[in-house]
Amino acid sequence: MNYVLATVLQFNQGKNSVIIKARGKSISKAVDVAEITKNRFLQDAVEVSNVTIGTETLTGGEGGERNVSLIEITLKRTS
Amino acid sequence: MNYVLATVLQFNQGKNSVIIKARGKSISKAVDVAEITKNRFLQDAVEVSNVTIGTETLTGGEGGERNVSLIEITLKRTS
Repeated sequence: MNYVLATVLQFNQGKNSVIIKARGKSISKAVDVAEITKNRFLQDAVEVSNVTIGTETLTGGEGGERNVSLIEITLKRTS
Repeated sequence: MNYVLATVLQFNQGKNSVIIKARGKSISKAVDVAEITKNRFLQDAVEVSNVTIGTETLTGGEGGERNVSLIEITLKRTS
């Protein structure tokens, strides 16, 4: 919920777009943040302009590598 | 992992595109399935052509309503 408020705040401060990023299990939370912002707080004022998914390779302390999925959701002010 | 194999199977059977859908906490799993299929099994053969997010309202047995986020990822054969 704090992320929703942070997103709303960015728009209220005049930003025209906000990118919500998350990795791994938090990906579903990022989608929730985007949807709640769009549907409950800023209806008809913002829209999802782009969604990108990808993979990031994290290197552990002992040289091990681990792939983690990521998402980037761009919310844009409707014109 | 079974979902990855199911997706690979669809392409191997000749499909030109596969849509991976998930709701709620499974959303991150859907992204994993798309990324693993694309990066490990069908490199350079498929690409993410579209990602859509949305909200679905589930109605409970006693008339209660609950919103749940959803994602749809379209994988497409590269031409």
